[in-house]
Formats: sequence, structure tokens, C-alpha cells
Amino acid sequence: MKKNYLFTPGPTMAPHEVLLAEAAPMIHHRTSQFSAILEEVVEGLQKLFGAEEPVYIVMGSGTAAMEAAVANVCSPGDKVICAPAGKFSERWADICRAYGCEVVNIELEWGQSPTPEQVEAAIARNPDARAIYLTQSETSTGAYTDIEPIAELTRRSDALLAIDAITGIGVHPCKMDEWGVDLVTSGSQKGCMMPPGLGFIAVSPRSWETIEACSSPRYYLDLLAMRKGWAGGSQTPFTPAISLVQALRRALRMMMDEGLENIHARHARLAEAARAAVRALGLQLVADSPVNGVTAAYAPEGIDTKKLVPLMRDKYGVQIAGGQGHLKGKIFRIGHMGYVSEEDMLVAIAALEKGLKEMGYEFEIGAGLLAAHKALA
Amino acid sequence: MKKNYLFTPGPTMAPHEVLLAEAAPMIHHRTSQFSAILEEVVEGLQKLFGAEEPVYIVMGSGTAAMEAAVANVCSPGDKVICAPAGKFSERWADICRAYGCEVVNIELEWGQSPTPEQVEAAIARNPDARAIYLTQSETSTGAYTDIEPIAELTRRSDALLAIDAITGIGVHPCKMDEWGVDLVTSGSQKGCMMPPGLGFIAVSPRSWETIEACSSPRYYLDLLAMRKGWAGGSQTPFTPAISLVQALRRALRMMMDEGLENIHARHARLAEAARAAVRALGLQLVADSPVNGVTAAYAPEGIDTKKLVPLMRDKYGVQIAGGQGHLKGKIFRIGHMGYVSEEDMLVAIAALEKGLKEMGYEFEIGAGLLAAHKALA
Repeated sequence: MKKNYLFTPGPTMAPHEVLLAEAAPMIHHRTSQFSAILEEVVEGLQKLFGAEEPVYIVMGSGTAAMEAAVANVCSPGDKVICAPAGKFSERWADICRAYGCEVVNIELEWGQSPTPEQVEAAIARNPDARAIYLTQSETSTGAYTDIEPIAELTRRSDALLAIDAITGIGVHPCKMDEWGVDLVTSGSQKGCMMPPGLGFIAVSPRSWETIEACSSPRYYLDLLAMRKGWAGGSQTPFTPAISLVQALRRALRMMMDEGLENIHARHARLAEAARAAVRALGLQLVADSPVNGVTAAYAPEGIDTKKLVPLMRDKYGVQIAGGQGHLKGKIFRIGHMGYVSEEDMLVAIAALEKGLKEMGYEFEIGAGLLAAHKALA
Repeated sequence: MKKNYLFTPGPTMAPHEVLLAEAAPMIHHRTSQFSAILEEVVEGLQKLFGAEEPVYIVMGSGTAAMEAAVANVCSPGDKVICAPAGKFSERWADICRAYGCEVVNIELEWGQSPTPEQVEAAIARNPDARAIYLTQSETSTGAYTDIEPIAELTRRSDALLAIDAITGIGVHPCKMDEWGVDLVTSGSQKGCMMPPGLGFIAVSPRSWETIEACSSPRYYLDLLAMRKGWAGGSQTPFTPAISLVQALRRALRMMMDEGLENIHARHARLAEAARAAVRALGLQLVADSPVNGVTAAYAPEGIDTKKLVPLMRDKYGVQIAGGQGHLKGKIFRIGHMGYVSEEDMLVAIAALEKGLKEMGYEFEIGAGLLAAHKALA
């Protein structure tokens, strides 16, 4: 007998209550019944985002929400500033190029995070930049970017600041209004303890002028249509993924019961335990400044994580993730965001130890588990 | 006590087995386990579409699939032919305009369907048209367009033929390859007995040359990325809506058990019963050539369907739909697609009679029900 655990940095485990809410009978969306569900969900998301304005639900993945943050802001030929240092910060640059933007990159290695000084210099060199696209939590390397001091710079500039907080929301604090961030995107299958299928995007008041003037083609991802649908009676412009929205309501209720500060503190504890285990196993983190939702570490010399990951899954039922891009095979990533308890963390580390041992890495068995346990106890 | 029935033309009722499949524990998508699910689902969709080539799943609503059929085909300035005669055929024209296309319309009234002669004349007048965007089943009016003779014309022209079969798939036959249609779009919450959240798009071999040359910006809806993801190991380019795909597998298995021909015949019977009831109640259909998935009829003089629809829902638990656009308040629409039995049809007609009676329409009570029953018996 083995139980299945999902420690990937998305999708993440979803509580049974949330999955069952997804199985509720179908209702029609153009009803006050569904509008009331949407209103509750949007109110919950506003708390998660730290936003007074409505958070729009994009029926799609987090990438669709990211594209909405480009397609509604950038017209062809616009200059944008990106800071590629991992798969998802590179995705910002890719989307911007797909929309005909001139992309200026802050030069970084994978695993690094852009500093306020680097952003300040980039703005100074490119005062005509339309927007700056950054990543709060870079899922591919586990690197954290401190948004607050950067937003302090951008809100004094003409450039809008857009943040991929896909694996940040529900893990790290997000205070969009207080910090002065212009666009924040996220997705359902991360800190929100939900299956994938919903993207989220929040928009600052000052962004709308740019959005209204933006000439890039968009229809399904048109924020003006989303704003109109919401203002016209708490509706979405197109048929929403009703069952996922119903499930999200349940997930957000569970999150509000736990309390946002408690949720952030739990993720900090889980991350500290994972890092303590990695260090105790003599391994190296990928990120200079690690996030609290995923721990990415280099595998020991000679161990291919393309083999370690399926071994742990097939033998112990514990699914972690390998590396992406040029880190494929070289690193492993343990997701600990959303519906992950301290007990789950021990399961992940124990299976990691068994997998590493089986692949020939020499270390004192139990060193990682004990370190995690001590960090949590 | 009242039970709730959903007779809207999307979303439609979903079988309990499908809803429970949606509640299955979360799994990771970059696994052979999920690829196997996707392969089974795509094989089922290929049968529904009559397509040898893979059908791509767009994580979004049917509108996202429609936008994919424009964004991947039309470059700014391209000429396209549309045939707006309802809300969804107008949507084709709206999306094309959003992408900077020059839209040539075949002139029709709402409720009419374009004829092969009209399409032939439009092609002759516009030999430089990039594509023709038509609607097999116009959900807003219940009008059916016979695609086969039109495809016979377009496949001899340079213009690609794109079909919105959102409420057609799983209701009417679709023989994409045999007919020679180039792009077929659909969505999950219609004939497929599924909750909303998935769009589908199938692409003919000859379309790819146009798609590869298309200069419109797209990322999330990029068909080239979908093709690459599929060819590279039965994957989607971005995180799929895993729970919805799991549910779709269950729904498609149920559909294959019933058999496609039986499904089409059942919808024909349901539609015949609904039309017989409408006629027996002395009412008029909206469409000249009606579809089998929804029956749209004008309400009796002086009866506002903006009142009839909530009355039937709140008092009898039976949710039908009103009109859209300029038909708002004037027509009602009974959806009978997907998971609808002959017994359900009687429920819908009985509630319609009670609602009409309550709103003061004079008719012999039971006339519609009896006509539906006779048509089905």
C-alpha cells in the first residue's frame, strides 16, 4: 500500500472539501445565485491580493492571466523591462515579444532576484518603458523577489509594475494597494489549494488609462470586457468555469478560517524545515533568496533528478518536481504551498532521503528528516 | 420540495459520474499518467469531430477556442467573411474586428441561416478572403446551418472554413475531414455533458501553412505551441485544467457507450418533441431551420420572458433561458443537449405550460405536454 502525495510547485494537493465542492450540481451562471458566489470569491481574492479593486478571474491558467497583463497594457513597439532569471520570468519576456514589444532585460543568472537598485537603473536608462514585468516567486528556481521596495520606485515612474505572483499568492504577503503594484497575476492551483483552470488578475486604478489606450488585439482576455461584466452585475464576460469557481469559494473559506497571517507563517515554517533538511543532507539551494512555496536544490554530483523524481513517485507515492530549462536533471524542487501540513513536510523529506539513498548518495540516513523535524518542533 | 433542472443551452446538466470524476485527487500533469488521460480524451474528441488529426483542448471557454481560430489564422488587415444572424455568429465578426480584419458580412436576419448560394456569392465577390467564419448551431436563435454543402465550396477556394460547433458537437453529426472543414471549435458544457471550462479546436492539415505565416500576436492560444506540446509527448503547452480533463474522460466514455448515432438520434427526438409542444401551444419558432440542441420560440404576445424564466426557475426548479440581444424578453429558449432524457423533456414542457398559464396566456393546459409525449412515444 502507498498513499499519493503531490509536492510539485503546482498543481498542489486540494482538500477533499474543495474537490467535492467542484462536484456540486451545475447551475446557470447568468443568475443572482452565481453572482453571489462570484462576489464572495472576489472578496476573498481581494484580501489575498491586498486590493480594494475587484480581482478578475480569467478562465484559464496563470499564463492566460499573465498574457492579459501584457495584451491589455502593451501596444506593438512598446518598450518593456523584464528580469529573466528562470522559466517564468523568461515567460514574461516571451509574451512581451509575442506582442511586438521591445524587451529590455535586467541581466541576471537563474536563481538570482532583481534588486531595487537594478530596477532603478533600468528605469533611469529607459524612462519611456511602458511597464516592468517581474516575478514575486520564481517557481523554476525558488527565488524570491521583494516587491515592496521595487514598487516604491515604479509608482514614482510612468512605467506600470506587473507582478507574476502565481506561486506567491497565499504563500507570501501581497499588499498590492499598499505597495503600489499595478497588475498582479496568479492562478488557482498553487497557494489557493485548488485544481488548475482559473487565473486571477488585479488592476490598479492608474492602469486603466493605459489599458483603454492599448491597441493590441484581445477579446477573451480583454480587461475592459471583464470590468464591464463585473460592473454590470457581478458577472464574467464569457461562460465561467462554474464548478471551479464553486470549488474556489470553498477553498477561500478554508483559507479565511485559517487566517492569512497564519497561512503565511505556516509556509515560512514549512520552507525553513525544507531548507534545514537540504542543508543537513549537504545539498545546495538554487536561489540566493529563497521563496516559501517551493524549495529548489541541486542534486548531489552524479545523481540525475530525471530519475530521482519518478523513482520517488513510483516507489513511495511522493511526487516532487525536477528542473526546467538548463536545470533539467540537475535540480529537484519540493513544492510546499497550499494544502501542506507540517506532517506532510516530513513525508516529503523522508521520501527524498530514501530516493537519494537508493540512487547511491552517501549521507547519514535521517539527517534531513531530523533537521526538518527540529525546525518544525 | 422541488428538484432543480437545467434546460439552458449551456451550461447543461452534467451526470453525477462526471461531477464525481471532477472530484478525483489532484495529479501532476507532466506525467505519463496524465498523458494517457489526455490521449484517451483526444481520441474521443476526434470521433465527435470526425477528425483524424488531434483535437486541441484550450483551457478556457468556447469563446477562447473561437479566438484561437481567428488569432492563429488572420493577420491584421486580412479580409474575412462572416454571416451574423445571432449573438454567436456576431461574435465571430467581433473577434475578427478585434484582430484588425476587414469583415465582409453575408446579410441575414436573426433566425436565418446562410445558404450555400450566399456563401458561393460571397467567395466570388471576395476571392481574397482569408477565411469564412460560420456557426453550425446558432445558440441565440436555434438556427441550424448545413455545413456540408458549404464546405464543398470552400475547400475548392483559398479561404479556410471555420465553424463554431459549440452547441453542435455531440448533438448534430460533425464530419470535419469528410466534409472538408478547416477549423472546428467547441466547448465542454454543451453536448459533452460537462461543466464549462474547456474549449476544443480541431485543425485541418491545409490550415497549418496559414497558421505558420500568421502574424497576429498570441501566446496562450497559440496553436503552434499546442501542436508542439502534443507532438512532444501528449502534453498541453500550459498547465491544463486537470480535474475538468478527468471529468471529460468520464463523459466521453459515457458518450461512447451510448454511441454517437444514438446520441444524434436522441437529440433529434428531443428537438422534435420540443417543437411539437411549441406548435401545440400556438407559438412560433425563431429559426427557419431549427437545431436539435435548443428550441427557441417567441413568447405569446404580452408575455415577457425576462419574467417567465425566473418564475419557472424559482417556482418549479426548471431553468430555461430567455433571449439575447434584441430578442431579450421576447423569446424563450429550452436547451435539450447533452445529459437530457425523454423524461426530462416532459418536465421542461410541463413547467413551461405552468409558467405560461401563470403569466396569463390562454391555452388548453396539457396541449404541449401531450404533443411532446406523442412525439416521443
